[in-house]
Amino acid sequence: MSIDKNNNYDFGIVGLGVMGRNLLLNIADNGFAVAGLDLDPQKAESLEAEASEGHRIKVTTQVEEFIGALQQPRAIMLLVPAGKPVDMAIASLVPLLNKGDIIIDGGNTYFADTDRRFNELSVMGIHFFGMGISGGESGARRGPSLMPGGDRKAYERLRPIFEAVSAKVIGEPCVEFLGNGSAGNYVKMVHNGIEYGIMQLIAETYDLMKRLYGFDTQTIQQTFEEWNKGELNSFLLEITAQILKKKEGDQYLVDLISDWARSKGTGKWTSQNAMDLQVPVPVIDAAVNMRDMSKYKPERLEAAKLLQWDGQAVDLPAATLISRLKNVLYFVIITTYAQGLAQLTVASESYSYELDLQVVTKVWRGGCIIRAALLEDFRKAYAANPDLRNILLDSTIAQKLLSTQASLREVLKDAIANGIPVSGYVNALSYFDAYRSEKLPTNIIQAQRDYFGAHTYERIDREGIFHTLWD
Amino acid sequence: MSIDKNNNYDFGIVGLGVMGRNLLLNIADNGFAVAGLDLDPQKAESLEAEASEGHRIKVTTQVEEFIGALQQPRAIMLLVPAGKPVDMAIASLVPLLNKGDIIIDGGNTYFADTDRRFNELSVMGIHFFGMGISGGESGARRGPSLMPGGDRKAYERLRPIFEAVSAKVIGEPCVEFLGNGSAGNYVKMVHNGIEYGIMQLIAETYDLMKRLYGFDTQTIQQTFEEWNKGELNSFLLEITAQILKKKEGDQYLVDLISDWARSKGTGKWTSQNAMDLQVPVPVIDAAVNMRDMSKYKPERLEAAKLLQWDGQAVDLPAATLISRLKNVLYFVIITTYAQGLAQLTVASESYSYELDLQVVTKVWRGGCIIRAALLEDFRKAYAANPDLRNILLDSTIAQKLLSTQASLREVLKDAIANGIPVSGYVNALSYFDAYRSEKLPTNIIQAQRDYFGAHTYERIDREGIFHTLWD
Repeated sequence: MSIDKNNNYDFGIVGLGVMGRNLLLNIADNGFAVAGLDLDPQKAESLEAEASEGHRIKVTTQVEEFIGALQQPRAIMLLVPAGKPVDMAIASLVPLLNKGDIIIDGGNTYFADTDRRFNELSVMGIHFFGMGISGGESGARRGPSLMPGGDRKAYERLRPIFEAVSAKVIGEPCVEFLGNGSAGNYVKMVHNGIEYGIMQLIAETYDLMKRLYGFDTQTIQQTFEEWNKGELNSFLLEITAQILKKKEGDQYLVDLISDWARSKGTGKWTSQNAMDLQVPVPVIDAAVNMRDMSKYKPERLEAAKLLQWDGQAVDLPAATLISRLKNVLYFVIITTYAQGLAQLTVASESYSYELDLQVVTKVWRGGCIIRAALLEDFRKAYAANPDLRNILLDSTIAQKLLSTQASLREVLKDAIANGIPVSGYVNALSYFDAYRSEKLPTNIIQAQRDYFGAHTYERIDREGIFHTLWD
Repeated sequence: MSIDKNNNYDFGIVGLGVMGRNLLLNIADNGFAVAGLDLDPQKAESLEAEASEGHRIKVTTQVEEFIGALQQPRAIMLLVPAGKPVDMAIASLVPLLNKGDIIIDGGNTYFADTDRRFNELSVMGIHFFGMGISGGESGARRGPSLMPGGDRKAYERLRPIFEAVSAKVIGEPCVEFLGNGSAGNYVKMVHNGIEYGIMQLIAETYDLMKRLYGFDTQTIQQTFEEWNKGELNSFLLEITAQILKKKEGDQYLVDLISDWARSKGTGKWTSQNAMDLQVPVPVIDAAVNMRDMSKYKPERLEAAKLLQWDGQAVDLPAATLISRLKNVLYFVIITTYAQGLAQLTVASESYSYELDLQVVTKVWRGGCIIRAALLEDFRKAYAANPDLRNILLDSTIAQKLLSTQASLREVLKDAIANGIPVSGYVNALSYFDAYRSEKLPTNIIQAQRDYFGAHTYERIDREGIFHTLWD
């Protein structure tokens, strides 16, 4: 590790926890001089231990020294916990900054907080970016997917660094300026919502294979590994196959892990905001609900005794079941992306983000948790039709769903007849079936609302607002 | 209409729109002297036209005159639109009020706003109540269900009036003090969430009867009317049967009503807040989602052409199908109440409402939109066990579900095989099946989170927090 005597560091990082440290080392690996700030001197020491020869790194606990070391216009990334710590970090930096300097918040910040900070800082001439980072600890170290949003012009100062450190897919960096204001945080939020959905869907597939079809863990492991070689190829399926290999003695580790699932809130934000925007994302809702349901363990134990159901055995060759489930997982995962991407389409209009979904799907192809072979298909769909409202309306994607829907309908018959809850699956299918319904029975709801609340209704045969005296 | 010369009016109402006017007349019917305030003189005139001999009513456009006419401690109810108008009304009244006076907000106010106002006014010694009112226009006029929350002691001033004007079930008034602070608004919000759920479930039942089983409207109408005479008896089923009678010439009016369903947000609030409290309410989520989905009409028309599925005809006697559907509707409606009531259980703890769910279900038995014969069963369940966490754990309710679940599983098989979306149904069943699952596959999710984010996990064989190096 060498110190740059000219105090001309290319980039600054505030907060040297595991994400900040790994990202700093990644940037240094790529030949940039990086300064780090953390109030905890131990963090500095542990960073020095990890740095290698040739890294140009400076670590300090002093804000003034940190700011003084940075080349202007300064580019400073915050990697501190979302919420108050971000405001505190900004407040400590701002008095020492000049117009044109840039602050990037790299945390999982709620998008509305980013909008507030963006507006407060733009008054002072400071550019503020909210940037989603995906890929976890190892992604930060070796190549994350980066989702920056803020000011398009100011992004040019950051571009060379972010493009160098990000993951690459066929040589293309998994980072691009996504849109205005809080667009980066919003895209990352929806990324996480989709992540919740896919994790739930993989868990349901595992559950059906184990509880319903009676496969052993080794078979499930091999099946996931096999699927991951084809069109289902994705990071989440890959790591699930890895996870199912892990043993402690003669027991599979997953069998020893509690089913009490935690969450940090980004899935919930996605669902709640989708409701504000009136975009249905039922698979994501189901994923949030099932993590919550997992926490009602004492009640579930009681209910398991009281609310019984004897299922009907399924007697089909394993190969048939596996081939069906492969189709199912493909169908339900596509539907989940469709929901999240539809949410981004509406959010971009509502919040003036000016998102290009071809760019979003391109960035998601590598480095991030939801990277998957399918993203290239989605990117192509948006490339062919930039105004696509929902990927289900792309004829290539539609074909994939048409050829797999029968398997889902078959498998659901088994699951329902046997009392296995598959919330993600059923919500994927009912979304699909509702979306392709020319007419929904919501006319009944309009009549009911008009009956009890005089809320009026529209008609199909003429324009206007109507009210009926029903009784 | 006579004027009370002593300016000793028992109750004041601010805002004489249709709800305020009807409630004022209802109170006057019951022998109380009521003063009304509205800035619009036309509202006063229209009220005078509706008043009868013997009513003691005073209507004014002047705040000072209104306040001066009220007996102290004053009891003033606001029936103005939720949001800013409530704050403006409060601001105009407060300078003229004394300590101990009471303001009641009778609108569909978001509970957090009520908490804020409660705190602001309690500093001035003024009691603030948030009160849910259900029953629509005609309920307000003839007997609504009232859901007041605020300060238990101050409620005594209001009790005689509210008990007189509310709906009655077997002589018992459908009003009771529900709990502290914003409890009244919260209970009303969840009431509306359940209402969304039941409306969606009735619409799905109609859709299956029509689209899948091919019943004509007259048969559906008669079936609903018949069901309403038994254990499914409820206001929403009753009005749906009424609605299905209505014809224009030889066409049923429902067939002319657009399927574009509007909503005013209380269902959405219920879902969003349930997610904050980590309580799954998937049927309510589905109802919110399907109203939203109804608005994507142009996309649905396109999807209907592209995403086709040929169903399998169902060939069973009509009597069998109708008897199954009756069981289904019973099952899914119970599950929806279970979700809303579970949300109230958790909310009462989180927000210190001190709700008594026996009281809530008692109040809901009459006057309100979700009144139903089932509520007496729920009330009995809470009477038998005040600490009941979920009505599915009551053995009598459990028995009802056990005896009807097979029908739901059968009907879903038909719906799924034929591509009819029944989001409410499938979410009711997967909630039931997840709730009665001793073990959910969320252990896979915990392993995945630990793999990519080092989020750690719990084990079933020992205490503590664990992390694994998975690859």
